[in-house]
Amino acid sequence: MIKQKILVDMDGVLADVYKPLIFKQYTQRGIAKTEEELNGVEEREAFTDLASIVNNTHFFADVPIMNGSYEGLLYLNEKFDVRIVSSAMEFDNCLDDKFNWMKRNFPFIGWRQIVLCGVKEGITGDIMLDDHPKNLDNFNGKRFIFTQPHNITLSNPTYTRINNWDQVTDFL
Amino acid sequence: MIKQKILVDMDGVLADVYKPLIFKQYTQRGIAKTEEELNGVEEREAFTDLASIVNNTHFFADVPIMNGSYEGLLYLNEKFDVRIVSSAMEFDNCLDDKFNWMKRNFPFIGWRQIVLCGVKEGITGDIMLDDHPKNLDNFNGKRFIFTQPHNITLSNPTYTRINNWDQVTDFL
Repeated sequence: MIKQKILVDMDGVLADVYKPLIFKQYTQRGIAKTEEELNGVEEREAFTDLASIVNNTHFFADVPIMNGSYEGLLYLNEKFDVRIVSSAMEFDNCLDDKFNWMKRNFPFIGWRQIVLCGVKEGITGDIMLDDHPKNLDNFNGKRFIFTQPHNITLSNPTYTRINNWDQVTDFL
Repeated sequence: MIKQKILVDMDGVLADVYKPLIFKQYTQRGIAKTEEELNGVEEREAFTDLASIVNNTHFFADVPIMNGSYEGLLYLNEKFDVRIVSSAMEFDNCLDDKFNWMKRNFPFIGWRQIVLCGVKEGITGDIMLDDHPKNLDNFNGKRFIFTQPHNITLSNPTYTRINNWDQVTDFL
């Protein structure tokens, strides 16, 4: 039987980017914000200096993995044809970091399963698990939104919301 | 009017990989072969030590561009919705090199237009320009094969053959 293809996002789904972004924004810019204070705030507004925090800084080399994501992705990788699809072209010199991060943290994912792109439009599959509406809205398949502070207040009848990796096995 | 989407390959289409591969195979391994001698020979057979020549060596950082590709891609970029789609996950630490190579040699291509992937299956478009049958055969659209030594003897009625970038404007 052919497995359904699921596109799984990196930042905000496998990679817990909020913790290091909040930390670096505090230590580098003196701006103190908690994750709760950023609920309902767009990422670009929450991290106004995003480009300078991540550009050429190896930010993505050691981002922590999301709680439960190792076991969750292992489960998905058994059940589905998993593709890791990450928007990765906007910031300079983070591509090798992102790829090596995947290999180190999720060694059961092979290189054939990884796609790093500018935009996700035109990359097809049956299911998408992503934290960004801009990606889900261009996807013709089942749409699962992974809860992150920036999307927590968002409601869209075409999305199924998944709050954390423990819930992934309930819905998928 | 919405432009048709064309997927354009890097290695063997925009990047002239044969010249540096032949050179490095000669200088590093003492194997002397001309491009003509490699006609009809699979790439893996032509360059038996491919992995060690390109892995972690910044091979892709300074590959020459294919003759006429700058003007040709500029033409395509006006006429079509161009996506640069390159298989780039097999060799270690070449992703940033490939992205920076695109930016340096084809600065009119924006980051939103670039996709680096393990396999191209599942990346959709109207037209594909590629030198590898494995990519063309999985593509549901018009298939254009760009002539390279490894595919020169190949005949497939579903492909249109383009021998060089000067011919691109005749066919597309």
